[in-house]
Amino acid sequence: MKQVNFTEAMSLWRIPERLILVTSLDQEGKPQVITVGWKMRTSFNPPMFAIAIGQKRYIHNCIAETKDFVIAVPGADLARETLLCGEPGTVLENRFEKCSFISQKGAFVKSPLIENCIVNLECEVVERIPSGDHSIFIGKVMASWIKEEPTKNLILVGPESGYQVLVEQEPYRLGIVKD
Amino acid sequence: MKQVNFTEAMSLWRIPERLILVTSLDQEGKPQVITVGWKMRTSFNPPMFAIAIGQKRYIHNCIAETKDFVIAVPGADLARETLLCGEPGTVLENRFEKCSFISQKGAFVKSPLIENCIVNLECEVVERIPSGDHSIFIGKVMASWIKEEPTKNLILVGPESGYQVLVEQEPYRLGIVKD
Repeated sequence: MKQVNFTEAMSLWRIPERLILVTSLDQEGKPQVITVGWKMRTSFNPPMFAIAIGQKRYIHNCIAETKDFVIAVPGADLARETLLCGEPGTVLENRFEKCSFISQKGAFVKSPLIENCIVNLECEVVERIPSGDHSIFIGKVMASWIKEEPTKNLILVGPESGYQVLVEQEPYRLGIVKD
Repeated sequence: MKQVNFTEAMSLWRIPERLILVTSLDQEGKPQVITVGWKMRTSFNPPMFAIAIGQKRYIHNCIAETKDFVIAVPGADLARETLLCGEPGTVLENRFEKCSFISQKGAFVKSPLIENCIVNLECEVVERIPSGDHSIFIGKVMASWIKEEPTKNLILVGPESGYQVLVEQEPYRLGIVKD
């Protein structure tokens, strides 16, 4: 073993990482969406999730205000859209429109579901914890939705064989595990 | 879209999930280790990670006491060991010995590094937050280590093609992405 810097260590095990979209509403009621890799389950019963959102992202304060969010899981058909929603972006652009996302009202939360996604989880924020340059939002899953004909999970992939790259923009490659 | 129960929704996007081992020390100074799927990065600068540990697991209180832990990333050669360390287990067994793990002293933390792993991250606990039946431990990465000749990331895989299953025990399949 040898001691290295953190970035070098991460490069060894960052892949594959499943990606999600997170939605919320801003103060004007406009739907907001962001691509998130940093998420994890945090409880079996009740089912809960945590997501980490950069404190400078516009959607950060939307989630803090509405106190709910939706985890929307993109399939292989949303590679381009998921790349786009990961860009820093501006407040003014309407990503929902730009991505042709069809929003649907949830059963419990104010944040919109994305009908184009393979899974949607409605989450109620139970806590927000600052962590360095991000905030961790802990959400309790209130309702779950699936698409009747789901495509494969979209993931962050590496240059190795075994993956099919669907869209690429340095330093990100999005794709799926090859059949 | 249709509304379903949470378990059905999760079955659509749980795979692939990277797995880690988390180590700590108990009150007698004995090394403890557990397999964890629920982990995420939570900050770029400083680098931080969150892990979710079941409140009933023995190692839960060890981490709460020592206030540090090590994220040790198993490669393809540790499939059997990673499966074993995910079992509920007993306090008495010595998993480090059972798995032939070689422990190494870290540069900052009390919890042991695992020399057999491809990456080791020394983490200092900055906060513990209860979340349902688990606790979230937020750790600041103090030092990073890599193995000179790493094998592939070990992941939780599904029954689909594209994965090579290395070890299996219902409901878990551990393996790698096929070349």
